[in-house]
Amino acid sequence: MTSELDQILISSSEPDFDKKLEQLRISTLEASWFREDDSKRDKVRAIVEDVSKRGDEAVRKYTEEFDGVKLRPEEFRITEEDLKNAHKEIDKSLLTSIRQAIENVREYQKQIYIGNRKHPGIKYTPIERVGICVPGVSAPLPSTVIMTAVPAQVAGVKKIVVISPPRYNGTIHPVILAVCCELGITEVYRIGGAQAVAALAFGDKEAGRIKVDKIVGPGNTWVQMAKREVFGVVDIDSIAGPSEVLIVANDQAKPAWVAADMLSQAEHAPGSAVVFTDSKKLAEKVLGELKGQVEKLDRSKETIKCLKEFGLIVFFDNIDDVIRWANNFAMEHLEIQCGQESRKIAERIENAGALFIGDYSPVAVGDYWAGPSHTLPTGMTARFFSALTSNDFIKSTSIIEYDRKRLAESAEDIIRLATVEGLDAHAKSIEIRLKGQQD
Amino acid sequence: MTSELDQILISSSEPDFDKKLEQLRISTLEASWFREDDSKRDKVRAIVEDVSKRGDEAVRKYTEEFDGVKLRPEEFRITEEDLKNAHKEIDKSLLTSIRQAIENVREYQKQIYIGNRKHPGIKYTPIERVGICVPGVSAPLPSTVIMTAVPAQVAGVKKIVVISPPRYNGTIHPVILAVCCELGITEVYRIGGAQAVAALAFGDKEAGRIKVDKIVGPGNTWVQMAKREVFGVVDIDSIAGPSEVLIVANDQAKPAWVAADMLSQAEHAPGSAVVFTDSKKLAEKVLGELKGQVEKLDRSKETIKCLKEFGLIVFFDNIDDVIRWANNFAMEHLEIQCGQESRKIAERIENAGALFIGDYSPVAVGDYWAGPSHTLPTGMTARFFSALTSNDFIKSTSIIEYDRKRLAESAEDIIRLATVEGLDAHAKSIEIRLKGQQD
Repeated sequence: MTSELDQILISSSEPDFDKKLEQLRISTLEASWFREDDSKRDKVRAIVEDVSKRGDEAVRKYTEEFDGVKLRPEEFRITEEDLKNAHKEIDKSLLTSIRQAIENVREYQKQIYIGNRKHPGIKYTPIERVGICVPGVSAPLPSTVIMTAVPAQVAGVKKIVVISPPRYNGTIHPVILAVCCELGITEVYRIGGAQAVAALAFGDKEAGRIKVDKIVGPGNTWVQMAKREVFGVVDIDSIAGPSEVLIVANDQAKPAWVAADMLSQAEHAPGSAVVFTDSKKLAEKVLGELKGQVEKLDRSKETIKCLKEFGLIVFFDNIDDVIRWANNFAMEHLEIQCGQESRKIAERIENAGALFIGDYSPVAVGDYWAGPSHTLPTGMTARFFSALTSNDFIKSTSIIEYDRKRLAESAEDIIRLATVEGLDAHAKSIEIRLKGQQD
Repeated sequence: MTSELDQILISSSEPDFDKKLEQLRISTLEASWFREDDSKRDKVRAIVEDVSKRGDEAVRKYTEEFDGVKLRPEEFRITEEDLKNAHKEIDKSLLTSIRQAIENVREYQKQIYIGNRKHPGIKYTPIERVGICVPGVSAPLPSTVIMTAVPAQVAGVKKIVVISPPRYNGTIHPVILAVCCELGITEVYRIGGAQAVAALAFGDKEAGRIKVDKIVGPGNTWVQMAKREVFGVVDIDSIAGPSEVLIVANDQAKPAWVAADMLSQAEHAPGSAVVFTDSKKLAEKVLGELKGQVEKLDRSKETIKCLKEFGLIVFFDNIDDVIRWANNFAMEHLEIQCGQESRKIAERIENAGALFIGDYSPVAVGDYWAGPSHTLPTGMTARFFSALTSNDFIKSTSIIEYDRKRLAESAEDIIRLATVEGLDAHAKSIEIRLKGQQD
């Protein structure tokens, strides 16, 4: 079965290589929400509209329909007692690791925070209310809470609301609850999907109960499409698709490590794992390692399927082409395993969600630990979207303060510019101030 | 006719004042794109899809249909000669004013730019390609080019594409062309509406000819809805509705100036103009001034209609309520005309696109001159959106660089966190690096 993986190795010597790679880029990376059929979009739109009109009652209905869980609206919110119990019962060594992860994220997010910059022409204020989507059904993702809520807290967000879909028995995984409790987040709702996103955007029936100003965090296609649908009513972080890694490697890279990193992305299933190298020997060795390692994984079968669909090992003629195509692919995670050259190559990377430099920086370090958020742009959107940071939880207000003298000096120019645009009253609002005493 | 304006004055002593004001806020400000009927949204979606598939040919078709102008695709782009001629023929004093405005904007945008901040954990890079929407049919808005392109240039954007709808005779107003030329922008296309936005998002038939990574700038409902439709394929600045001003004034304000500023917003027709004050006397005087001044305007009739629909003068019991409601309204422009108190009140404003402090800072100063962009969040979105700045034309990449020692120190925690999330291969990607020599 692993022999089928041979197909993922391609070389720049193949005919029509550029066209082929461009095509592979699109099929491997293009955000899945955009490939959704219209009927799914219409369904999402209908859910969002229904929740905007009927609030709680609509959320209840869809929770029963999609999550198979019957909940009365007053049961959506997790009680303080349940949050505290989850925190009490969490494994102590796990709690220690979580606390250190929180500390690392907080420290990093503080360092890169720009909201405290002083300039007379601009003022930064935290967004007041933020909603966080935490996936929860397939595997509990407590790291999502850390990587989204801590940046928001660093920015000074006052109200954080967490939503996470209920499992078959109507609960949220206790590790997620424990992390919320650890962070002092008290508004946690066991609702998910498009209906929960809509509830965050419009509030439910008790007006404004969970309404927020910005929605962030990962989720399945329903969640992402709903985020897109409510964008403008609230802000959103990005529209995220499946996870991805691009590994730029030369002949100094360790094939076994490169293969292990491909697998750690492919196990998300779907998750895209791509290697670009200028060493034919490395390309072949990585493929060999991949075949060997994948069979030993718990989720071997799904991972092989995922690699065939979203995996690539590409051998280029030279490192310049590698870098050019790496910028073109604009991937979520970009590892550079090129020995002493790694940093120099990193400097030439313009489009990537996060850069992992050197042999000892696998993506997992960023997923859980180093500090930067693991909420990153996918599907080639690193051309314009960024990693989620504390700076995404503030907004700026421009400040303009003229006195009479300064206005008088500028009046002629401003009036000339307003006049060419045909905006009579704009010009008059300047003139009236300079006519002398008015009342 | 101006007596009809009496209805816009309301007082906190009215029954159900809070509810009424909340309702007025929604009817006065809610972004018009969101109130659009489904059929218009479906039309926009169909146009965007058509352009994404048929490129140039679809753009040509809709340009004929909506702008009433027959153009062959090779005529979309303005020739270099036309750009140069427009620049040559512009009124010299106007050019001088434009040059100083550009200089003011450039200086401000440089000062607040964060892209040159150095931190080992983050790297900022300019977005490569940006598209700018410039309205052009009702009145030429050369200031739009300045207020969007200059911030992009400060950030180091390499490729700037300007689109502007063709006038009846198929041309773009020469003042817009002259400003483009002055700024060294050579890619200017005479196309507009949803079809032009789609062409920017997907490129036209000659793949990538005008494709960009981010689309910014104002436009009518078609343009804004199309921006919303392509969000995710590209980034967009915001979804902007009609222009708005909120004037916070106390008894020290000059009624005539307050009224003039209301009119300079209402003349956009539609444009929302709201006054909040704790002085009953001022409220009444402003209303009187408004009636007097509006009749003298070129666009008197439209402005009166607009004031009736989107104008408000609200008298509150105290300044605390004024400030609370000002933050609640979260308006695009917020003037504070409260004498010596103005700055102190400004400090308490959390939600506003731009603040204009004191008697001599009417909105027109910001629209054309002071430096901050006039592209601002509207429709209560200042709760989460910001003024357009040079910082909107960069994206960040997180940087993670661990060595063997640091990875070894963190390994146990990272593996524990990966394991609780059921991500086997994530844990293995750490373990394999610490097992000793690998190849």
